[in-house]
Amino acid sequence: MVDIATRVWNHKWKIDPIVRSLIDTDFYKLLMCQSVHRNKPNTRVTFQLINRSRDIRLADLVDEGELREQLDHIRSLSLSRGESTWLRGNTFYGKRQMFSPEFMAWFEELRLPPYTLEKRDGQYRLTFEGAWPEVMLWEIPALAVLMELRSRAVLNQMGRFEIEILYARAMTKLWEKVERLRTVPEIQIADFGTRRRHSFLWQDWCVQAMIEGLGESFTGTSNCLIAQRREVEAIGTNAHELPMVYAALADSDEELAQAPYQVLADWHEEHVGNLRIILPDTFGTKGFLEHAPDWLAGWTGVRVDSGDPATAAETAIAWWKARGEDPTQKRIIFSDALDVETMLDLQRRFTDRARVSFGWGTLLTNDFRGLVPNDALKPFSLVCKAVSANGRPTVKLSDNPEKATGPEDEIARYKRVFGVGAQTPIPVTV
Amino acid sequence: MVDIATRVWNHKWKIDPIVRSLIDTDFYKLLMCQSVHRNKPNTRVTFQLINRSRDIRLADLVDEGELREQLDHIRSLSLSRGESTWLRGNTFYGKRQMFSPEFMAWFEELRLPPYTLEKRDGQYRLTFEGAWPEVMLWEIPALAVLMELRSRAVLNQMGRFEIEILYARAMTKLWEKVERLRTVPEIQIADFGTRRRHSFLWQDWCVQAMIEGLGESFTGTSNCLIAQRREVEAIGTNAHELPMVYAALADSDEELAQAPYQVLADWHEEHVGNLRIILPDTFGTKGFLEHAPDWLAGWTGVRVDSGDPATAAETAIAWWKARGEDPTQKRIIFSDALDVETMLDLQRRFTDRARVSFGWGTLLTNDFRGLVPNDALKPFSLVCKAVSANGRPTVKLSDNPEKATGPEDEIARYKRVFGVGAQTPIPVTV
Repeated sequence: MVDIATRVWNHKWKIDPIVRSLIDTDFYKLLMCQSVHRNKPNTRVTFQLINRSRDIRLADLVDEGELREQLDHIRSLSLSRGESTWLRGNTFYGKRQMFSPEFMAWFEELRLPPYTLEKRDGQYRLTFEGAWPEVMLWEIPALAVLMELRSRAVLNQMGRFEIEILYARAMTKLWEKVERLRTVPEIQIADFGTRRRHSFLWQDWCVQAMIEGLGESFTGTSNCLIAQRREVEAIGTNAHELPMVYAALADSDEELAQAPYQVLADWHEEHVGNLRIILPDTFGTKGFLEHAPDWLAGWTGVRVDSGDPATAAETAIAWWKARGEDPTQKRIIFSDALDVETMLDLQRRFTDRARVSFGWGTLLTNDFRGLVPNDALKPFSLVCKAVSANGRPTVKLSDNPEKATGPEDEIARYKRVFGVGAQTPIPVTV
Repeated sequence: MVDIATRVWNHKWKIDPIVRSLIDTDFYKLLMCQSVHRNKPNTRVTFQLINRSRDIRLADLVDEGELREQLDHIRSLSLSRGESTWLRGNTFYGKRQMFSPEFMAWFEELRLPPYTLEKRDGQYRLTFEGAWPEVMLWEIPALAVLMELRSRAVLNQMGRFEIEILYARAMTKLWEKVERLRTVPEIQIADFGTRRRHSFLWQDWCVQAMIEGLGESFTGTSNCLIAQRREVEAIGTNAHELPMVYAALADSDEELAQAPYQVLADWHEEHVGNLRIILPDTFGTKGFLEHAPDWLAGWTGVRVDSGDPATAAETAIAWWKARGEDPTQKRIIFSDALDVETMLDLQRRFTDRARVSFGWGTLLTNDFRGLVPNDALKPFSLVCKAVSANGRPTVKLSDNPEKATGPEDEIARYKRVFGVGAQTPIPVTV
């Protein structure tokens, strides 16, 4: 058993790397990386860290020297023999050799590219530039480092015993959630909490809690390192960065309109079954589905990641019906801003109408709300996104205008091209 | 930081002695032992374990072999050099050399005498016979062993993770009590929880929580080993066994009536100040105070250990006033069945009328109520008492007839001699 409080206490007097492995990242990053490595290896991208929670002044909380030390440590990492063996030998989503020998040979040689870091307005401006397959792998470790350094900054103000009580309370809080969830034996939940986790050890503990508490209802974790260590499934499919970069590379409005479908056409060639999950909201779910080619309706399911989740699920169900598909054979994966009550509500509402599952993120691995004074450990909305590709800005609209990113004129153009009408703003907290 | 969950887990596969030191006992046992060693060294006594909670079938829960192993281990213990140094060199209640060189020389040679153990009706019949100063030192370790073996028996049914969550919850529960208590800065609380503790490690943790959470309001612990390790005050004065044995030795009703005062006369010679605390309830508080000699009114305070605590405190205050003493200069130590709300109520009620303090026992060191199914870890009422002295039965009446012990005819005789009238029964839970 890891004594988390002791480890946190030790953080006060020695350097303790936050990210210690290149597979301490989300499984879907590796799947996407393989796809990008095959289809767009020479695309140049810029990824940038963006703190949507401006009130959390990271540059005041986190020492620049420590941050550089952590980032430099990540640049020193390479795939270990055991990690490579696991990626090559494991069965993912029922498939052997998910990662091709060509991709693995490249990955084994990989070191993460340089970063640039400066302070601005109490925030860090952290950017990564270079070849897409390399730069994209910075996203998760960069987020994990900033999140954990912020946690440590707060914990450094606390006494040894206060830290122990803090974790006792956080454990109790999570376990009470687990106990609520296991009243619904058919529920299916995976850990999607790597990027916003309180700390690595805490995420690892949360996964163990889910394993012990939920049994078969816990379907796995997005974190490859934890999946390896705890011998559970690595979970994930694809993310917004694929359509965002494909769209930025489009040379005309017509190509732009087709870009999100081209992403999935490439994916269709590479993957079958449960990996064929549509993420339809990058430029608005409604328009995406209306204009989707018929072969997409044959895919296994959708992931709902912004806007009102029930509305998005209804939209998907109506779309499947309109295309002659049986929604009860389709999977709907909810992955945005989930907590226990939301999951239980959605489960009740859709359980007989589709195959429901959940990717539970921030409020699984970082719910320290109400546990320290001034709520100094409350989760916040940090992202690390592709902001440009081959010199052109990227855009994301999503189903919540509060989550839109990109230059204003480009946002307007994308809204026009993708036929996005009025959207309901929903406050973004996590 | 001790990882309690790991240690408990380890209990499943190796022998782990519960009592590892002769000073893992209550301070007042050593004070009384010194007094007995000086005044009644040749008295023969029998101590017996009595489980007042018949529904906890200890002999079904606890393996006899394990119990013998633990008891035999205690018989192998002797005072270590560091323990002896601490007892000889420390200042207790502001006094150097609390323990005389003669007593220490005897104690350093001491091994605990044999025990007899048999099973009867789902309970263990555990008795100790021999010289009073030796036998009396069995009380606390015998209780601690039975309490902890029962805890282990329940924990053995649990998974590794369930154990961790259990302790997280118990820690959170205790910390919430501490947070309630520290809203009253003038409160004074000591740990009196050795005899009914969930386990040694848990008591040690509880003391650390009190140190960190209550600061100056935590006045110390009755447990000598923990006082030594955590560098806090060892707390305690005297207990019912002194008047019970003195009374049993009385050769007439007249001697019997004087016995409780003779105990305190002996104590008066040995101790001053804060050690002069009257425990008036052994044969009924009311009669004891009415017939007490005047010099007793000059003592520092009383300890309230049975019956309704507010009533007992009022009785003491009225008695001091009747004897011309100023109650605001007197100490009232509450030590029976305390939990947070009781302490806060008593503090509010008596804070301006006397010097109030608390000896918090079972619900400090063993409050696992509601934390496991069937409440299998709820505290229960186990005692280890002197049942006879020089062949005569002992009697205890207390201010709660539910707590009375001894043969019925002797109880009747004691009630007559000490003028005990109607008493209000209060259910005994802890």
